[in-house]
Amino acid sequence: MGLWVKGRPMFTMATGTLPLVVNRHKVPLTLFLLINSGLLNCQQFIVPYKAPTDCSAEEFFDISSLSCARCGPNQQRSTTGLSCICITGYQTLTTDKGSITCQLCPITTGGFECIRCPGSLTDEGNCKCPQGSVLGECERCQATFINTSCDCNPPNVLVTSSGGHNQTFCFKHCVCVSAAMHEQVVWLQVFSNLTACQSLGNMCVMNMHSFSGLSTDACGLFNTIFRSRAALSSTQDISYWRNNLPWLYYGDEPGLASRVLQTDPVPIGFSFRGRNKNTDIKLLAAVYNVRGEFLRWEPVGGSNLQLCPDTTTKQAAAFSFGTAYQQSCDLSVAKLLDTHPEPLFYDVFMDLGGGENSKLLPLPTLVYNQQYNGRFINQESMKNWYLSRRMFLVDTLSGREKSMSSPPKIIRVASSLVPRTQEGQVFPPLMTVTYRDVPIDTQAVSITFSVEYEMDQNEARAKTDTALGVMGGVAVLYSLLKTVSWKRRIASPLIDVETMLKFLLFYAGDLANVFFAVTVGTGLYWLIFYKAQQFVSVLLPLPAQEEQFVTYIGCAFALKAIQFLHKLILQVSVDIFFIDWERPRSKATTGEPKRDPSPVSIWRTYFVANEWNEIQTIRKISPTFQIMAVLFFLEVLGFSNLALRDPWPTLERSAQVYTPPYSLMLRYGLAATLWLCIGVLQVIFFTVFHEHFVEDKIRQFVDLCSISNISVLLLSHRCFGYYIHGRSVHGHADTNMEEMNNNLKRESESLCGQRGLLPNTEIQTFQVSLTNRLRSQYERIREPLNRRSRPSRLMDASSANQFEQNARAYHTMNHFLGSIIDHAHSDMDYIVKDKLMFERVIGMEFLEPSEKSIFYNDEAHSFSDVLFYGNEATLLIFDTLFFCVVDLGSQSFVLAAVLTYVQQMIFRLIRNALGRRNLVNKTLVDDRFLI
Amino acid sequence: MGLWVKGRPMFTMATGTLPLVVNRHKVPLTLFLLINSGLLNCQQFIVPYKAPTDCSAEEFFDISSLSCARCGPNQQRSTTGLSCICITGYQTLTTDKGSITCQLCPITTGGFECIRCPGSLTDEGNCKCPQGSVLGECERCQATFINTSCDCNPPNVLVTSSGGHNQTFCFKHCVCVSAAMHEQVVWLQVFSNLTACQSLGNMCVMNMHSFSGLSTDACGLFNTIFRSRAALSSTQDISYWRNNLPWLYYGDEPGLASRVLQTDPVPIGFSFRGRNKNTDIKLLAAVYNVRGEFLRWEPVGGSNLQLCPDTTTKQAAAFSFGTAYQQSCDLSVAKLLDTHPEPLFYDVFMDLGGGENSKLLPLPTLVYNQQYNGRFINQESMKNWYLSRRMFLVDTLSGREKSMSSPPKIIRVASSLVPRTQEGQVFPPLMTVTYRDVPIDTQAVSITFSVEYEMDQNEARAKTDTALGVMGGVAVLYSLLKTVSWKRRIASPLIDVETMLKFLLFYAGDLANVFFAVTVGTGLYWLIFYKAQQFVSVLLPLPAQEEQFVTYIGCAFALKAIQFLHKLILQVSVDIFFIDWERPRSKATTGEPKRDPSPVSIWRTYFVANEWNEIQTIRKISPTFQIMAVLFFLEVLGFSNLALRDPWPTLERSAQVYTPPYSLMLRYGLAATLWLCIGVLQVIFFTVFHEHFVEDKIRQFVDLCSISNISVLLLSHRCFGYYIHGRSVHGHADTNMEEMNNNLKRESESLCGQRGLLPNTEIQTFQVSLTNRLRSQYERIREPLNRRSRPSRLMDASSANQFEQNARAYHTMNHFLGSIIDHAHSDMDYIVKDKLMFERVIGMEFLEPSEKSIFYNDEAHSFSDVLFYGNEATLLIFDTLFFCVVDLGSQSFVLAAVLTYVQQMIFRLIRNALGRRNLVNKTLVDDRFLI
Repeated sequence: MGLWVKGRPMFTMATGTLPLVVNRHKVPLTLFLLINSGLLNCQQFIVPYKAPTDCSAEEFFDISSLSCARCGPNQQRSTTGLSCICITGYQTLTTDKGSITCQLCPITTGGFECIRCPGSLTDEGNCKCPQGSVLGECERCQATFINTSCDCNPPNVLVTSSGGHNQTFCFKHCVCVSAAMHEQVVWLQVFSNLTACQSLGNMCVMNMHSFSGLSTDACGLFNTIFRSRAALSSTQDISYWRNNLPWLYYGDEPGLASRVLQTDPVPIGFSFRGRNKNTDIKLLAAVYNVRGEFLRWEPVGGSNLQLCPDTTTKQAAAFSFGTAYQQSCDLSVAKLLDTHPEPLFYDVFMDLGGGENSKLLPLPTLVYNQQYNGRFINQESMKNWYLSRRMFLVDTLSGREKSMSSPPKIIRVASSLVPRTQEGQVFPPLMTVTYRDVPIDTQAVSITFSVEYEMDQNEARAKTDTALGVMGGVAVLYSLLKTVSWKRRIASPLIDVETMLKFLLFYAGDLANVFFAVTVGTGLYWLIFYKAQQFVSVLLPLPAQEEQFVTYIGCAFALKAIQFLHKLILQVSVDIFFIDWERPRSKATTGEPKRDPSPVSIWRTYFVANEWNEIQTIRKISPTFQIMAVLFFLEVLGFSNLALRDPWPTLERSAQVYTPPYSLMLRYGLAATLWLCIGVLQVIFFTVFHEHFVEDKIRQFVDLCSISNISVLLLSHRCFGYYIHGRSVHGHADTNMEEMNNNLKRESESLCGQRGLLPNTEIQTFQVSLTNRLRSQYERIREPLNRRSRPSRLMDASSANQFEQNARAYHTMNHFLGSIIDHAHSDMDYIVKDKLMFERVIGMEFLEPSEKSIFYNDEAHSFSDVLFYGNEATLLIFDTLFFCVVDLGSQSFVLAAVLTYVQQMIFRLIRNALGRRNLVNKTLVDDRFLI
Repeated sequence: MGLWVKGRPMFTMATGTLPLVVNRHKVPLTLFLLINSGLLNCQQFIVPYKAPTDCSAEEFFDISSLSCARCGPNQQRSTTGLSCICITGYQTLTTDKGSITCQLCPITTGGFECIRCPGSLTDEGNCKCPQGSVLGECERCQATFINTSCDCNPPNVLVTSSGGHNQTFCFKHCVCVSAAMHEQVVWLQVFSNLTACQSLGNMCVMNMHSFSGLSTDACGLFNTIFRSRAALSSTQDISYWRNNLPWLYYGDEPGLASRVLQTDPVPIGFSFRGRNKNTDIKLLAAVYNVRGEFLRWEPVGGSNLQLCPDTTTKQAAAFSFGTAYQQSCDLSVAKLLDTHPEPLFYDVFMDLGGGENSKLLPLPTLVYNQQYNGRFINQESMKNWYLSRRMFLVDTLSGREKSMSSPPKIIRVASSLVPRTQEGQVFPPLMTVTYRDVPIDTQAVSITFSVEYEMDQNEARAKTDTALGVMGGVAVLYSLLKTVSWKRRIASPLIDVETMLKFLLFYAGDLANVFFAVTVGTGLYWLIFYKAQQFVSVLLPLPAQEEQFVTYIGCAFALKAIQFLHKLILQVSVDIFFIDWERPRSKATTGEPKRDPSPVSIWRTYFVANEWNEIQTIRKISPTFQIMAVLFFLEVLGFSNLALRDPWPTLERSAQVYTPPYSLMLRYGLAATLWLCIGVLQVIFFTVFHEHFVEDKIRQFVDLCSISNISVLLLSHRCFGYYIHGRSVHGHADTNMEEMNNNLKRESESLCGQRGLLPNTEIQTFQVSLTNRLRSQYERIREPLNRRSRPSRLMDASSANQFEQNARAYHTMNHFLGSIIDHAHSDMDYIVKDKLMFERVIGMEFLEPSEKSIFYNDEAHSFSDVLFYGNEATLLIFDTLFFCVVDLGSQSFVLAAVLTYVQQMIFRLIRNALGRRNLVNKTLVDDRFLI
């Protein structure tokens, strides 16, 4: 099933997708994240999972590295487990490297400073309070360093935030640079060391990771610190993750993003069914608050990244592998302010499982509006991307001007998550975030959370194109063959403009078939392999990747329409003549040739013409039943649910579960396949059952010819056509009911001859190749008839004149053709032979009718080629494409059904009207009898 | 518009609705609330809106009465504003009546008790702490009285909770009865007086308001206290609302509920459009926690009563007047535990507006599973209802066994809100709550929140029934008339069983029309008046109220089907004969009567029979186009949105807004109206445009008869039928093309006579009333033909014999009928006359054809009554009903369309097959020519 080459870059796809998602769905913020391979050292970025509770009593949880670290001497874990404190009786001394030292106190209370007790000590070493009073608590230096006032006292320093808004904040306790020396970082406080770095990182995240090189800018300051720590060992062996600092950036080397995203797959296998069914994408986030405090490990899911409210079931669908998820809503700013009083920061990891020792894979993030020295690098091509980590959903903080109590002016988020797969292997998901500044007086902010799965479709596309190329080449040959056959049938050896045009018309039809076959094949391939796969091997193309496919369908439809119209025009201009074999009876008894007392009744001809008129537009299927059946399957039985962008092949969808969007490709594959299947079933039913046991209109027509003593000559080309031999075996058909019934009875009892053209044969239908001479003679006789369709002459009398001329021409033609069939003209004789199998297959005659015309036996009633009946394939494909094109444009099967019905009705009316006019012109039967 | 009588009780409706909602939608809990009229004193229960911030500095907010009350001497408002505290320097002394007294302290700290300071005093009279220590706080007696331990020390007492589970709780500080004397209530604590009573009330609410008479039961205890306070004045002048107690119950007098719910409307006018558009139902809730503390005033909306998550826009639709709202979801128990750590209690009011001094209307609640001495009284009829107030959504507390830290076992809620309206006035909404106990190990709990609008439909129903009665009576008369006409046409004077049966068949058809007219009228009425009303005057019937309507539709369909089948059977058994006027030509030249040399050709008869066979099932509309057009309007243009249960007549619905459920009545009204409209438009198009400018199949057939020299006699009854006069004006039709064209040309130039039966008339079509004698003769001649359809005789030879007999009978009949028309039989002569206008209208002939048969001129081609063509109304109504019935059953227009198509196809095939067989039997035309 390998549809693409491993390791092939995906630049085009990825960047192609991004703007689309943003434009089409108004994603307020996007974040791209892609992990996995060891970047430069080609090592997987996998870290073990540790929670604060996993640390032993002598260890604290290092929120920077997300691992356990040992406390110093005389220290114990604090109650939160996130830091160490001095054990009872020890006084805390600070050092400048982020650790504490503990010294024995003379008198002891908490763990921070030695204070004097008002009374005696308890057994635990704490102060004992006198009756009626309680123990005062030592006020701890809280890690609150975002001050509400903007007056910074040295050595505190002002740090700017939120690029566009020039908000400023004071760092009170924590990360500060002395105003004089920006380059050198001084760590002032002991207790807030770790959280301070986290907090600075969060400031930078709120700045959307943008930095301009100024070190007063939060990200600039962070990078200054980051660089200053290059000498120190990195955390978890990841070079971008420095000790005591949060991991905010991947490197800025060009092309790093694609190496990070596309080198190694995630070591998890997803499968859609079977015993090892595994479709859960388990994500885990380390959550920090704005002060840099580590809050908890949180499983991603439910509503923590999805701001739009929805039921748990529906929200959970976002993390079911293979389900294209899209959730958009307008949230009121008031509600956002209410539910997100302060921003939370998420470091997202993928949980690789493993029970106790579960491993985590950090996911990269792409901040769509991250600026790098003023450039929106992440909106450029993938090789310029600057991946990052850590994101927030709503920031109601940095938009506050002057004081923390004033209302904010900015709120931001929504994300699209894009995991990709390759033959059962999945590359690390990239989280794309776009932040948007929302003024506080906005009523509602539109938020989108979506999950897309992307696969390299280049290979698939290359295969499609190859198939198109090969089949297109074969189609050229086939069309050439058709053109040659056509040239021979019109008995014209010259290659002129008309020939070229004819070739193009034939080629349109064949190319349409090629496009149709390739698109249906592709659609069906996706439908089957995507919906039925057990292990993840193929993923649907993204909407942007479907564009070429839709173009192909459009081509198929346009070319098929040309072919259809071409056939329609040919059909309504065939030459047709009804040869009446009936001779006046009185002739037999008396010898006088003039003034026949009882003329041959024209009513049999009327009857045959009327029937011929009626079978113009019958088909091998019932077109309306076709539409209704397709609609029934799609809309009532719920087959349309098969076209949803998720891997579940279920027809029934509860309203409680999430409904993903439709895939155009699946919709096309489904609709076209269903239409073709039902069509083919109908054709089988009608040709096998209905025509044998109920009625066969074509057979009936041939029988009618025989009973009514009338033959039909149809010329579809100048020198090629069809002949239905209808000479009555009873000699006369123009008789009363008694004799008719007798005749029928005799025939059913095989008491009379057989109906065939040759004696003792049954074959009544022939393909005929006429000689040029015969055709010329035919045209000479028909010449007066042609005038009929010309504009009326000047004289009024010409009408009556014309009338007589017509009648004369009719009789001459009748007599001429009858005598031809009776072999009466030795210079225009004909022979009857079977067609070679190969001739049948390629639809071309090898023998040229130079001396004698050739009548080929044709038991297959191929004269129906000049009716709708004989062109069912073309009509069925045209209808299929029409239905699908309307559906692709409107995403509504009902509209497609209605318009297809209208289309069929219109073309049937046109075909009937033009066919009837042609019949009137060619056979002289008055159109009042064609009812 | 008044559809019902004011003040009429609504018992049936309300109780009828309740179980339905519960059964159909699995509402886990229901609450019914209905306010408004002054119950016994006929005074509106309206209270002014006060918030804690509305009270002045010397007042506190009395959470029991929700009003401001003045503090005692030396007291000031506490910071929460919900109680009074002693001003600085005063010591708090408690009394037993829920108020405090303040006494000057010698040394002062907080406001509660006098304690000794460890150091000196500050200027504000508080303790000054020595350097390095901070001020200890006096521990306040918190109003926590639900203890976690179940050991109660006297005078505390054990109180049971949650009827079914026998949970027990200790009240620590607050409401307690001494163990010895249950009857006497002792108020122990001062500070927790108000909250204690609220808390006891909340205990009772958590008990689902159920009480058994035991006073250890929370509700029992509440009622004991309630009764003991009868002497004290009531709060806000509402007798059920006692001082210092929450308002939990309305009285238990029988019938009080209906008085409360149905006496006075809410003083708010709703209107759907225009300048004063007002559709917002503003509800306000006073929120308490389980400890009885007043938390806040909260506007109801968003997610406070709606547990299922959804967007704000959709949730807001619940409180848009007139929109039937239903929101169900399965919530995980874990999530409920997480989001509702402790229960909140809501006292719901309707906000009557008024800006500053806005008034509130307390809404009554009906707790569906409230028990009163073991009976579920609220599941009985309305007169037993025991209304209450205050509800909770999720109780995770009372399910905890033994200790508060153990996990709970019970969770409960969801509500349906049912406001009702009357001519623009709205009765107070009733909130129905059903609580459900969910074991903690349940995965998910199904929760429903719905808003229904109920209107008394008795008047509407009475009007419908009246209309049915009156029109049904008229239908009887009309059916009698039809029966009489039928009796006359079959020339039978006896009233026998067949007559009765025939009457019933006629009546079925007429009654079907009555039902159809009434149901379509009703549906259309609702569609127009509900969707187009400006002021609220009508509300849709509830699903339960639609049942009778659906029954009527079912009756209409069943009766229509009977009528349709009856007509079908009559149509496929009409007598038909083609009279050939053509005489052999040779007869004219020679005198020999025997052995006619050129027999009259039968082909004209075949042609006419073939055409007749083809027009059997043509209709005045295109049935498939009809289906497609209806589907297009409903599903593509979005007309189906008009059937949604909300008052907005918009076709486009965004996916972002709430979509209410469908109303069966509106669906029917919409579908039937649309179907009829499109059908009538089609009939107009076909009869006015198509038949005049394109082709008129019926007219064509009459013309064909004339050209082919063949008359048609149709006998739909024994002595009644139709005659199409087709005698050629040219004498001969059995001729060649030249002469045919000449004939046609002569006729078009008016060079020959007119086609009418009478000389110089144009009228070719007649209704005929035959004399008994003529009919008997007809039958005598036809007798041999009848044998044809009988089983074959023993002898083989009979077949050939039969053959000749048939031919002879055919010729005899042809000759006989021709001579009748030619007035050749004086004893079976006929006259031609016009039908009276009145005769046409009632469809009956006044003259009895005793001596002479009567031919009535009939230019309207009423012979099409024996075809589908002449019965378009019946077919259209049958199709409409079929479509609607399928749709009502499946709620799918697409399925209805598909099945209607299949139905039409099947009946067309049946009609064609049977009609063809009848034609073969009656006219002797071989069925091989009917193609």
